[in-house]
Formats: sequence, C-alpha cells, structure tokens
Amino acid sequence: MNQLILYSYFRSSASYRIRIALNIKSQKYTYKAVHLLKNGGEQFSDSYKKINPSAQVPTLVDDDFVISESMAILDYLEQKFPDPRLFPENKKLRAEVIRFCEVINAGIQPLQNLKILGYLEKRYPNDKTIREEWLKKWVGEGMAIVEQLLEKSSQTYCFGNTLTAADVLLVPQVVSSNRFGVDTKQFTRITHVYENCSKLKAFEEAHPSKQPDFEQ
Amino acid sequence: MNQLILYSYFRSSASYRIRIALNIKSQKYTYKAVHLLKNGGEQFSDSYKKINPSAQVPTLVDDDFVISESMAILDYLEQKFPDPRLFPENKKLRAEVIRFCEVINAGIQPLQNLKILGYLEKRYPNDKTIREEWLKKWVGEGMAIVEQLLEKSSQTYCFGNTLTAADVLLVPQVVSSNRFGVDTKQFTRITHVYENCSKLKAFEEAHPSKQPDFEQ
Repeated sequence: MNQLILYSYFRSSASYRIRIALNIKSQKYTYKAVHLLKNGGEQFSDSYKKINPSAQVPTLVDDDFVISESMAILDYLEQKFPDPRLFPENKKLRAEVIRFCEVINAGIQPLQNLKILGYLEKRYPNDKTIREEWLKKWVGEGMAIVEQLLEKSSQTYCFGNTLTAADVLLVPQVVSSNRFGVDTKQFTRITHVYENCSKLKAFEEAHPSKQPDFEQ
Repeated sequence: MNQLILYSYFRSSASYRIRIALNIKSQKYTYKAVHLLKNGGEQFSDSYKKINPSAQVPTLVDDDFVISESMAILDYLEQKFPDPRLFPENKKLRAEVIRFCEVINAGIQPLQNLKILGYLEKRYPNDKTIREEWLKKWVGEGMAIVEQLLEKSSQTYCFGNTLTAADVLLVPQVVSSNRFGVDTKQFTRITHVYENCSKLKAFEEAHPSKQPDFEQ
C-alpha cells in the first residue's frame, strides 16, 4: 500500500483543507512540514519547487504521482477514495458545491496570501494600515458572499445535512478570517456550520494547533 | 429544449473560458452582456446580484438553474454535455488538468481582477506605476509557472494532442496577459499551444472581438 505524503504548513488554509479531506476519507498520511517564513520561505527551495513550481503548499505525493492546488487534490482524493463522497452525485448540487468552494478558493484565499501582503508592505512601508485594511476589505466582502450562499443551502452543514467539500473549504477560511481580523461571529450561518463541523474528529485533528509544526 | 443563457463581458477572461467551452461542446446560447465598467459596473445592480451575489461574470443560466464561478460552470457543462470531454477520464491526468486550470483560475486571474486594480489606484493615487508593476509581477510570475507546467505536458495542446479544460483556461489568459503588458511571446510552449488553439473555430468565435458587446 502506498504511503501518502502531504507537504503542509500548519497555518496554510489550503493545506488545512486537505488535512480535513484526508481525515474524512480515513486516509493516513505522512506530514512533511514546509515552513513558509523560515529561511525566506522553505517553499522557495529548489528541492521543493521541483515538486511544486508554484512554490506553495499543499502538495500531495501518492507513490510516483505528485499533485498540487487544493481543488485538484480534492478531486484526486475523491476519485481514488470515493467513500465518503465530498462532491454530491447530483449534477446541479455538485456544481453548486464547486461554486461555493471557488468563492473561497479563487475569490478570497488568493488575496490573503502571504506573498501579496508582503509585496504591499514592502512597496508602501509608510502605509501602516494597508495590511489590516486590505484583509478586512477582501476577506470581509468574501465572507459576506459566503454567508449569502449559505442562507440558501445550509442546514447542519454548508449543503443540507451531509458533509461536502464546501465544509472542507469553509472551516479553514473561518479560522483564517478571524486571524486576519474579520470577526466571523457576525455571520450566523457561517458560525452555525463552523461549530457543527468543529465537533467532528476529522476537522478537529486537522486544526493548525494539532499539527507537528504548530507554533504559537 | 432549454435555451442556455450566458451572462458575459467581452473582455472578461473567465467569461471567455465559458464561451470556448460552450463552442467546443456545440451548445448554442443566448449572450447577455454585463458591462463591467458602465454605470459603475452593471454587475453590481440588484437584479444581477440576485443571480450572482459575487457580482462577477460569467453566470450561466440553464432553465431554472443558475450557476457561476467558471470552474463550476465547466464542471456542470462537462456533466451535462460530456461529449467531447474537457476533463480526461484518467484519474491522475484529470487531476493534473484541474491543477493547471487552478494555477490560472486561483493563481493569476484573482490578482488581475478589475476590483483589485481599482482599489490600488484609489488608495495610492500618486503611485503612477502600481497598476503596471502589479500586473507585470503577478501575471508575469504566474505565466512563468504555466510555461514550466507545459514543458512537461504539452504537445499540440496543453496536455498532449487532445483539447482539455487547460486549453480553455490558457487561451483567455494569454489574451489578458498581453493586454496587461506581459508579452507571452517569451514563453515558447504557451505560444505554441495558443497558436494551435487559435486556429480552431471554437476558440476563434469566443474571442472578445467577436462578441456583441465588443468595444475597441
């Protein structure tokens, strides 16, 4: 049996997604920490960029197969370990789950990325509030859209009472949003789903504070 | 038979992706133009935000089903009109195609978004080069990663000699990159694939200059 390897950083929300998905699908994996800040960022090392030219985490290695970008990893895991499903079988519902995921994956996460914040702070060293305001604006606006989507679809979880990939993306985004100064308590549906997911072992064990590379 | 409706803006690269996909799958559709600049942006109107709370194009309407986020729309079209496929059947290849798509969808496109450029120009009115430098940096770096990926996978198209969703995302990104001052001619593989795709009617007819809302 292959041993899955996950290149991850405890605080990376995209890595956190994959940790949750692997847990939901009961897949054991070897955790390889990539420190995104130490030594100018271990993700920029030549050895890491060989497996992931984007110099980002996560990367999943399954024997000789190397895959990155969390939405692609989720798709791969879904095909290889279909039970339990994370993407509904129903065509329309499946597309809606992917839409929800992309509102976070392409709509929020890229704007809260370390490299973007670093660039802004370097270019505008005298602008002491850009980091905070940038995050509040884009993460705040993004979460408001997520809340609107949940008003239509959520019950216990993002889509009814069954876990989907939407929950896998929502929970890490809630943790990031709060860290970035966007208080998610203002969003009733987000908070409800977040609290329900947080009770599940698969989510609990994937939390940044439970990872081997966790730092205060 | 349902009439598909596509809310699109001629210059939007995400809309362009869906126009190409619909053409490849030989699906006729009604084009509804959403002008992203006129009247402060028609995407912000209450009527449009009702169908797409993210206030972005594209949105696809199929009878009573409304779906947005281009990766979700592509997945929906693939399920509903599976022939010809845009996502390979092979698990690993399929994941690699999605990875490639996400390098553009979540890695490049969000940073070249109109709303981001507008925010930066408004916040730093005295910084006359931020727009140009921002685009050159993020679009340029992103395209260099795309080129690296293509070195491994491309032949006539992004993945071998069969069209995939990767081509559907690449071509609009090439057009945007050049518009944003990143000369894609420096990237041999990108240029090769772009030229091959451009010969196909499905791509040609989806080009911004062929849309009813085209403006110089």
